[in-house]
Amino acid sequence: MADGSLIKIGSHQIKDNVGYDLTDLIIGSEGTLGVVVEATVRLLPVPFGNPVTGLATFSDMKTLSEGVQNLSGSGLYPSMMEALNKTSIEALDRLDHADLGKGGAEALLIFQLDVAPAGAVDASKKILQDSGALTVSVTDDPDYAKKLIKIRQDYYQAEAQYGRLIVEDVAVPLSKLPDLAKFVSGLKISPEVTAFLGGHAGDGNFHPNFAIPRDSKAVPEDVHEAINKIFTYVQSIGGTISSEHGIGEIKRHWVLPQLGQEVVDIQKQIKKVFDPNNIMNPGRKVE
Amino acid sequence: MADGSLIKIGSHQIKDNVGYDLTDLIIGSEGTLGVVVEATVRLLPVPFGNPVTGLATFSDMKTLSEGVQNLSGSGLYPSMMEALNKTSIEALDRLDHADLGKGGAEALLIFQLDVAPAGAVDASKKILQDSGALTVSVTDDPDYAKKLIKIRQDYYQAEAQYGRLIVEDVAVPLSKLPDLAKFVSGLKISPEVTAFLGGHAGDGNFHPNFAIPRDSKAVPEDVHEAINKIFTYVQSIGGTISSEHGIGEIKRHWVLPQLGQEVVDIQKQIKKVFDPNNIMNPGRKVE
Repeated sequence: MADGSLIKIGSHQIKDNVGYDLTDLIIGSEGTLGVVVEATVRLLPVPFGNPVTGLATFSDMKTLSEGVQNLSGSGLYPSMMEALNKTSIEALDRLDHADLGKGGAEALLIFQLDVAPAGAVDASKKILQDSGALTVSVTDDPDYAKKLIKIRQDYYQAEAQYGRLIVEDVAVPLSKLPDLAKFVSGLKISPEVTAFLGGHAGDGNFHPNFAIPRDSKAVPEDVHEAINKIFTYVQSIGGTISSEHGIGEIKRHWVLPQLGQEVVDIQKQIKKVFDPNNIMNPGRKVE
Repeated sequence: MADGSLIKIGSHQIKDNVGYDLTDLIIGSEGTLGVVVEATVRLLPVPFGNPVTGLATFSDMKTLSEGVQNLSGSGLYPSMMEALNKTSIEALDRLDHADLGKGGAEALLIFQLDVAPAGAVDASKKILQDSGALTVSVTDDPDYAKKLIKIRQDYYQAEAQYGRLIVEDVAVPLSKLPDLAKFVSGLKISPEVTAFLGGHAGDGNFHPNFAIPRDSKAVPEDVHEAINKIFTYVQSIGGTISSEHGIGEIKRHWVLPQLGQEVVDIQKQIKKVFDPNNIMNPGRKVE
């Protein structure tokens, strides 16, 4: 705590409703309420049986997003749905000379069901084909699955071939994912910058990433503008300017338009309860 | 809010980390921070395929609790594990003349996997047999599953045959479930009261219930004492005196021993942020 004292919050129970939920208040507070010096996490068992893993290609990110929506609503409960756009596919092909973009594929989906019900291979394949996928391959073979997952694991390395990476992080409701994909792909960027769109589509969470020249002293103005346009658009369709990465100092001016003055005022009063002298990571998160 | 104003908190995103998490602060605050006038909930799709549903009997609740622990750790991800003790079984047998207690069964488990991987019927059966179950039957037939679920649905009606019900609600870490079961079954209660133990064993959550004579003016002293002994024991093994039902006025004196003075002080200050004049459901939850 700000006064140097140590408190213990949370519960070892799966369900516990004694007192207000301080754990979720501290999680994501970015050190502005206190310093987490110890955390106990719950472990989950390795799922029973083989997962089902698949790769699908689409003509564009909008169609892919529709596929993601349909897979989300299918009752198959995918544990992973990773999406990559055209430039991301090109970067991966350049990295290992594969041919992921063949047949005009401009969007790539890699998905997995950790707990796979009987019939899941055929069902997920059909859902994505019916959603307009160009190609779909689905497997419950662990070795083949590893190869599909590796494509996703290589993604940041593939992007980094093009320069220094500026990584963004927005999310929208799943129903708005096709709109976000369309908006981002329509943005104009100067030719010395490569823009990528990838991320955790099952969470409605896309990372618009920009590879800028390695010798850039600062983020180029047009990249800044593009990011601001994305933020404004995302907020206008009910999305968030930070899904995973946090607010910190850089995004704090976007907090007010997203939450509104009344909620920000409450947040500041809560900050004051924990840190009356404003010494814990000042100037971040909600200030 | 306490001043009559209306605020909107939360997010339509699956992941959103703009600002502090006020939603989880309000959930379970029992009207002490504000009044929820509208809530948007996320719907989940009906799981793909047939669920796997099962019933197992055990010689006692301790053995059942070990079975629950083993099923929890199996990677089969059960969505329901409902436990009922000896008196609960007798009450169900009395209600519909079934013979759930045959062969000396003094504990009953009804479980379900909403998303059932291939091989789950045999695997769950084997886990429970290896845990010492007397009988195990597992099915993926929806009609048979309905009959198993109905046993659980009839439970409160079965208990109510014996008198007016006092319903309690505690939880312990899953590893302590066998200890809790043993402790509660060892409590002495006068013969005009029937004590039941049942609940959501997969969450470590048991409801010690007491059927008292219908003409009782107040909760009998020995029932009060038994409940207090359970609360003290549960807190001594790291459990909670309220898993689902809340604190309200009745349990508020148990909040301090469970959370400690420093955490209670923070909770009171948070209450003050939302309700400076103490007009929102005063005297409840953390006061």
